[in-house]
Amino acid sequence: MLTNDQLAKWDRDHFMHPTTHLAQHARGEAAGRIIKTGEGCWITDRDGNRLLDAFAGLYCVNIGYGRQEVAEAIADQARELAYYHAYVGHGTEASITLSHMVMDRAPDHMSKVYFGLGGSDANETNIKLVWYYNNILGRPQKKKIISRWRAYHGSGLMSGSLTGLALFHQKFDLPFDTVRHTTSPYYYRRADVTQTEEQFSAQCAADLEELIAKEGADTIAAFIAEPMLGTGGIVPPPKGYWEAITPILEKHDILLIADEVVTGFGRLGSMFGSPHYGLKPDIMTIAKGLTSAYAPMSGSIVSNKVWAVLEQGTDENGPFGHGWTYSAHPIGAAAGIANLKLVDSLNLVQNAGEVGPYLTRTMADALGEHAHVGEVRGEGMLTAVELVKNRDTREGFAPADKIVPQIVGAMARRGVIARAMPQGDILGYAPPLCLSRGEADTVVTATAEAIAEVLG
Amino acid sequence: MLTNDQLAKWDRDHFMHPTTHLAQHARGEAAGRIIKTGEGCWITDRDGNRLLDAFAGLYCVNIGYGRQEVAEAIADQARELAYYHAYVGHGTEASITLSHMVMDRAPDHMSKVYFGLGGSDANETNIKLVWYYNNILGRPQKKKIISRWRAYHGSGLMSGSLTGLALFHQKFDLPFDTVRHTTSPYYYRRADVTQTEEQFSAQCAADLEELIAKEGADTIAAFIAEPMLGTGGIVPPPKGYWEAITPILEKHDILLIADEVVTGFGRLGSMFGSPHYGLKPDIMTIAKGLTSAYAPMSGSIVSNKVWAVLEQGTDENGPFGHGWTYSAHPIGAAAGIANLKLVDSLNLVQNAGEVGPYLTRTMADALGEHAHVGEVRGEGMLTAVELVKNRDTREGFAPADKIVPQIVGAMARRGVIARAMPQGDILGYAPPLCLSRGEADTVVTATAEAIAEVLG
Repeated sequence: MLTNDQLAKWDRDHFMHPTTHLAQHARGEAAGRIIKTGEGCWITDRDGNRLLDAFAGLYCVNIGYGRQEVAEAIADQARELAYYHAYVGHGTEASITLSHMVMDRAPDHMSKVYFGLGGSDANETNIKLVWYYNNILGRPQKKKIISRWRAYHGSGLMSGSLTGLALFHQKFDLPFDTVRHTTSPYYYRRADVTQTEEQFSAQCAADLEELIAKEGADTIAAFIAEPMLGTGGIVPPPKGYWEAITPILEKHDILLIADEVVTGFGRLGSMFGSPHYGLKPDIMTIAKGLTSAYAPMSGSIVSNKVWAVLEQGTDENGPFGHGWTYSAHPIGAAAGIANLKLVDSLNLVQNAGEVGPYLTRTMADALGEHAHVGEVRGEGMLTAVELVKNRDTREGFAPADKIVPQIVGAMARRGVIARAMPQGDILGYAPPLCLSRGEADTVVTATAEAIAEVLG
Repeated sequence: MLTNDQLAKWDRDHFMHPTTHLAQHARGEAAGRIIKTGEGCWITDRDGNRLLDAFAGLYCVNIGYGRQEVAEAIADQARELAYYHAYVGHGTEASITLSHMVMDRAPDHMSKVYFGLGGSDANETNIKLVWYYNNILGRPQKKKIISRWRAYHGSGLMSGSLTGLALFHQKFDLPFDTVRHTTSPYYYRRADVTQTEEQFSAQCAADLEELIAKEGADTIAAFIAEPMLGTGGIVPPPKGYWEAITPILEKHDILLIADEVVTGFGRLGSMFGSPHYGLKPDIMTIAKGLTSAYAPMSGSIVSNKVWAVLEQGTDENGPFGHGWTYSAHPIGAAAGIANLKLVDSLNLVQNAGEVGPYLTRTMADALGEHAHVGEVRGEGMLTAVELVKNRDTREGFAPADKIVPQIVGAMARRGVIARAMPQGDILGYAPPLCLSRGEADTVVTATAEAIAEVLG
């Protein structure tokens, strides 16, 4: 058996980690962690530490760890057929069945699902679909994409351009020029503190109208948005936001891409975030909750309206020139089928809609009056605690003080994992959808103690 | 149990396939195939047909189908820990061990591996790395990428831009302006038929020099190339090609990205294609053979030279803002470890170097004199038969005649799968590396009979 020291050396010598301080990691200055196993909401590392993972990996292990039903479905598929491609109409029982199960759960106006690997490549696919769509419709100039500041849509070149966070832009020459960002629907950080939520939503809509007018509606192909902001801060939309935004898109014939990577398959206490907020998207991005991360798989769900143009396009031009070798991978499909069955049989959507709000409410009760807690917010099984230096001015801490990473470290010492969100002083929570009320209490207690330790 | 009719209906109604004529598929006009299981070089479909897969899926099932050692490794990992992320220095025994095994096999001057999902996203990562590299070095204008016509580097927006094939550009507004394509090292299709291979290689080098001079070397960040052209036609480089190209890149301080997605882990009869052709790349793209497609996984291997700048970058700017949720996925890592062990224990690299050339030679013996066979070529376990209407003029068939798809169909009726390459009248072969001489004979016989059926 490999020793931890041997693994740590290989790790430093050979492994380039995502979203990591590469130099510190290679020099052994950063605290890594080697995860060994997990069960329910809990993981165990190779040093024997057991932690409650209140971020579900990267908000993806929705059914919780260690579900043997999914492991056995993966095992059976691996034994029978680990791989065959899906090009030129090929399929497997698993990939076809999963497409049926996804469309059975998707809103009625959606037509088909294309399977990818992760959220970033699914959004890449979506932009290709949107451009193709407008080329087939003879509108070659209608190609720009409007996203929102603080959006997260991936970290590739285009998907990172859609993202509206500095970490994913700086030093990478992003965003691309074809992407425009509009106002983030982040009520707590509104410029004019006198605005009500409804007034701020009207402001967001007016800003969008202004941007469209400036660029020209005939140059704008699509608007992409998470139904509720995720990595940008876990921020539910302010009252009246979507009601104000969607008519503008319809008026200007701008497609709506709903990025449901975080919200899809139950996290908000509803199967998808779009119907939760009354949206009727033209394209939906899915990933994380599709397989609960037991195997990599994402998807692009297209509406009847978009599909009709794709059919026209292939009738006019022949095969659609887009595909990943691992599109509709059988292992991912088998994991997805078993996962969606568990989401149903364990009533996880319902549990997310009950225990999630309990977590947010309990957190607000415990911390809402703390001098350095600006806001506790959430929706479904998503909660955020935004810290501030000064509650009245909403002034943040100096980034060099690393207040939130310190709190996250203090929580980990207490056996609970939360996430330091990448922009702002925000603690993020996105537990497995099977979280119990007792576990929610554990998360709140660890948070309160850690904040007290770091900030008093 | 689901009936084939039920699956076929779901497939038409719900499943958007990659690289497929979408309208024909949805209308039920295209022949799909539902694959059930496989063993060695053979797959079996749900109708009970057994076929010799001489393209190994999409040149990826290098160890062959049905390897229970890999299935059990996947099963064990799924039971113990299906997922944890690799952000901020996190890892698993599987991901760290695989990083060690990859770097143990990579050329000595390479430093670390970043794990992705598929070849397209790995090349996306590579372009981000290259841009970051030049930003850290204070060369913000050195960003363009030179690729080659007929290259294949993926089908995303940037990776599809790097690709030099019309199918992946048309109607998608690609390639991006930041990508330039230079002459394809495709000797059979040289403009000047009087040139020797060496003269044509010198021409390719001169064309590259001219392009660099026109654009300005200080605007060119990298040159990306498959050591041997794959999807563009399965074309070994002409004599003297790489010897002529690499000094130009060094002279102008242009990084070399070797796309080893097809050639990595044994397909040419050597562990990687770069040392096979004497290349010393700065970045290597790996995918397919890394896991033999048993689970999705790709990688970007960076050299010591590139790594040093990445360390400098994170020391100056903090964490590297790039990552996929499924980077270094444990299931992929477990599959990769078991796969690479099998590649060794079954001597598959050696077998590729012996049976591959046997296949090409036998094919040439059987078909080389046929009036419609322009060239039989190959290297290692990669073979192509290029068909022509006229051997003397090299004139091709009318695309509407679909000669190669007809031949592929006639081969499938004889139980052998070859690939109609996407551009040109080219039959492609990339069998599992475990192909036997007897199976090679079967492939040649089916090809000869199918060509005779279609072309006489």
